[in-house]
Amino acid sequence: MPTITGFRVHDVRFPTSLDADGSDAMNKDGDYSAAYVVLETDDALRGFGFTFTIGRGNDLCVEAARQRALPLVGRDVDELLDDLGATYRELASDTQLRWLGPEKGVVHLAMAAVMNALWDMAARRAGVPLWRLLVEMSPEQLVDAADLRYLSDVLTRDEAITMLSAAAPRRRERLDDLRARGGYPCYTTSAGWLGYSDDRLRSLLRTAMDEGHRHFKLKVGADLDEDRRRLRIAREVIGWDAHLMIDANQVWDVPQAIEWVTALSEFRPLWIEEPTSPDDVLGHAAIRRAVAPIGVATGEHGMNRVLFKQMFQAEAIDFCQLDSARLASVNEILSVYLMAHKFGVPVCPHAGGVGLCELVQHLSVFDYVALSGSLDNRVTEYVDHLHEHFVDPVVVARGHYRLPAAPGYSAELRKESVERYRFPDGAYWLERAAMEPLAATR
Amino acid sequence: MPTITGFRVHDVRFPTSLDADGSDAMNKDGDYSAAYVVLETDDALRGFGFTFTIGRGNDLCVEAARQRALPLVGRDVDELLDDLGATYRELASDTQLRWLGPEKGVVHLAMAAVMNALWDMAARRAGVPLWRLLVEMSPEQLVDAADLRYLSDVLTRDEAITMLSAAAPRRRERLDDLRARGGYPCYTTSAGWLGYSDDRLRSLLRTAMDEGHRHFKLKVGADLDEDRRRLRIAREVIGWDAHLMIDANQVWDVPQAIEWVTALSEFRPLWIEEPTSPDDVLGHAAIRRAVAPIGVATGEHGMNRVLFKQMFQAEAIDFCQLDSARLASVNEILSVYLMAHKFGVPVCPHAGGVGLCELVQHLSVFDYVALSGSLDNRVTEYVDHLHEHFVDPVVVARGHYRLPAAPGYSAELRKESVERYRFPDGAYWLERAAMEPLAATR
Repeated sequence: MPTITGFRVHDVRFPTSLDADGSDAMNKDGDYSAAYVVLETDDALRGFGFTFTIGRGNDLCVEAARQRALPLVGRDVDELLDDLGATYRELASDTQLRWLGPEKGVVHLAMAAVMNALWDMAARRAGVPLWRLLVEMSPEQLVDAADLRYLSDVLTRDEAITMLSAAAPRRRERLDDLRARGGYPCYTTSAGWLGYSDDRLRSLLRTAMDEGHRHFKLKVGADLDEDRRRLRIAREVIGWDAHLMIDANQVWDVPQAIEWVTALSEFRPLWIEEPTSPDDVLGHAAIRRAVAPIGVATGEHGMNRVLFKQMFQAEAIDFCQLDSARLASVNEILSVYLMAHKFGVPVCPHAGGVGLCELVQHLSVFDYVALSGSLDNRVTEYVDHLHEHFVDPVVVARGHYRLPAAPGYSAELRKESVERYRFPDGAYWLERAAMEPLAATR
Repeated sequence: MPTITGFRVHDVRFPTSLDADGSDAMNKDGDYSAAYVVLETDDALRGFGFTFTIGRGNDLCVEAARQRALPLVGRDVDELLDDLGATYRELASDTQLRWLGPEKGVVHLAMAAVMNALWDMAARRAGVPLWRLLVEMSPEQLVDAADLRYLSDVLTRDEAITMLSAAAPRRRERLDDLRARGGYPCYTTSAGWLGYSDDRLRSLLRTAMDEGHRHFKLKVGADLDEDRRRLRIAREVIGWDAHLMIDANQVWDVPQAIEWVTALSEFRPLWIEEPTSPDDVLGHAAIRRAVAPIGVATGEHGMNRVLFKQMFQAEAIDFCQLDSARLASVNEILSVYLMAHKFGVPVCPHAGGVGLCELVQHLSVFDYVALSGSLDNRVTEYVDHLHEHFVDPVVVARGHYRLPAAPGYSAELRKESVERYRFPDGAYWLERAAMEPLAATR
């Protein structure tokens, strides 16, 4: 009977702002960061999880994760992991912390970090990668783990079981199929950050084409003429058979979004991502009606399953970009996948940041093998940075995520990376503070 | 040229859970708390503001408020206060903190606390109560202060100015009218907490009737038979001419809400409050269609103006219960009032907690005098506890909030109260920790 003996939560920040990695029309100076949870037991088993932020305020998530994790200490590991639905509901039932959301913002990000660590631990305990843990669960087990609260007007427990049961007989065949394809298809955002020069854009797109990518995303929304110039360059490099997506990172009001996207329609984008406030279900629906056949995509800031429920009900989106570290881990993510399947909306998870690619590769495999069985209009985001800090980094080849093989949720950071980039006392930040006294207090 | 020289943020927690004050079907054990901001200048002028929480996690809001307030230090007071719209937009433009919401949860509550303190300071500088500061601002000044971002599909700047200008000539007459009525009408929640016994319920309702109240709210949603019994008692005491409201504090899914409220319809409630997730715009709309003529009310957990915009667009609510410490202060509250007026939805602000009554009395006066000019279906919540901790507490007589007269936003806590209830090092919490070692670490 192993027991949770304690945990550590680290404030890890990478200085991505120095290089304009991750720059877009809303977020110009992000230092990609993780509130990183390590759950410890009295044997060798551990669990690693995190939520992702872009710098300041990562300490708030760290402290919230500490408060979320506290009730786990002293608990029996098997009891916690054998029913991760019950464990999730217990942590979520802290009504004092709930008041600070509810189910959104810092306390929800912290819930994601802690539950991600528990799912990682469960997969490690089973000796399998998380995707395999999921595709080996029965429909009933999956639905017991899913957070269906507030969803029964669109999805009942019985419907969820029926959908998963329908897919169950074909799980093995689909898994073989994914392996034969070389993994799960992805697209790249690495080329398209706003802060990059035209030459860098051109050369990154060429490299990505050579690597086998056929989906490319560019940031837009700061300046219309600039957007036209960059999209023209992109089409010159990738041609018209490859897919081009554009991402405005929430900078527009609804009427402005419609106007701007219409002005860019000649470049035939597959989707416009985050055209306006991520909370604006009806706004996304209005934009979608106005800019069709250009699709509408959102979700990286989708705060919880109730928001996604409404996005589906209102027919507001063509692509669901759920975030693996903003939704409250697999428990809530399962619910969003189930609703998306019922409504026929493809899920293309948000990734990038710190370790989001490492997480979402597991989720995409689950979706294909155990639920949707379709790759139509499905590509998972891929951004090529910060993977070197992970013990089990993603492997992307020819535009596909290879199926991860190591036990767990691929969430473990390298110890040297945590030591070096821990804020504010890691070696990197101490060195920088010595050179540049203001950096450490930002 | 006074300057902001510094600030303090206190974690103040009152042990309300000991007495079941504030108990409802969702929140059984709240310790009403405030993340309390004191802005200091190099002259006598200060600003007081807070956000409200129910205990654990109040420290997260305190730390977030510190980070929000940091950019104010060293700044010219007049420059900050002469254009509170610009000041708000500057604080909101921190995209690293924005990532943690955006515009919701802990970072948004912290924004409310800091901006509340700045509005308090602005009213003190002018030597008037906040409501007077607002009703003496021109339509253009009010709209410049309002946060209209993401709202232009339902409310343009010009429309907002037109609405306020239409009301401007009648401001003086309406103010006289409010004074003649004895203030702004309120209703009481003090009687109806779930944890109270039937005898206590009955006697509290009788007292409130005697005090002149004609609107009474009861918590429901834990047990249908219990609800029936308590509503029967309430109708026995208050009769059928007085208004009875019920509040479920988000415990139901949409279908369950419809079923439960229908089962209670014989008691003819004026409204059902928070029937389901506060994020569920379409769910509230469905409930509203199903339970009419019982009205639907929500808003105390309404996270931001974009949520309220959709509540109005979807015709989801009959009563808008915005929260003065959850929305990002007057800047965002103005926008919600303006939209509510355009859509013809009465605003009945949420109050209670710590100091929410003190704040909302100002907002209600503003609404009547400078915008709606109507009291139809408008009552502001009133809960009779914790007022003794305020320097300038509300005065409620014969079911009306008297117009506050002292300069400011009535947000200043008594120094002794802060000292005694500061967590975990105030005298109260130290004493309790000595008696009951676990309490201090909750």
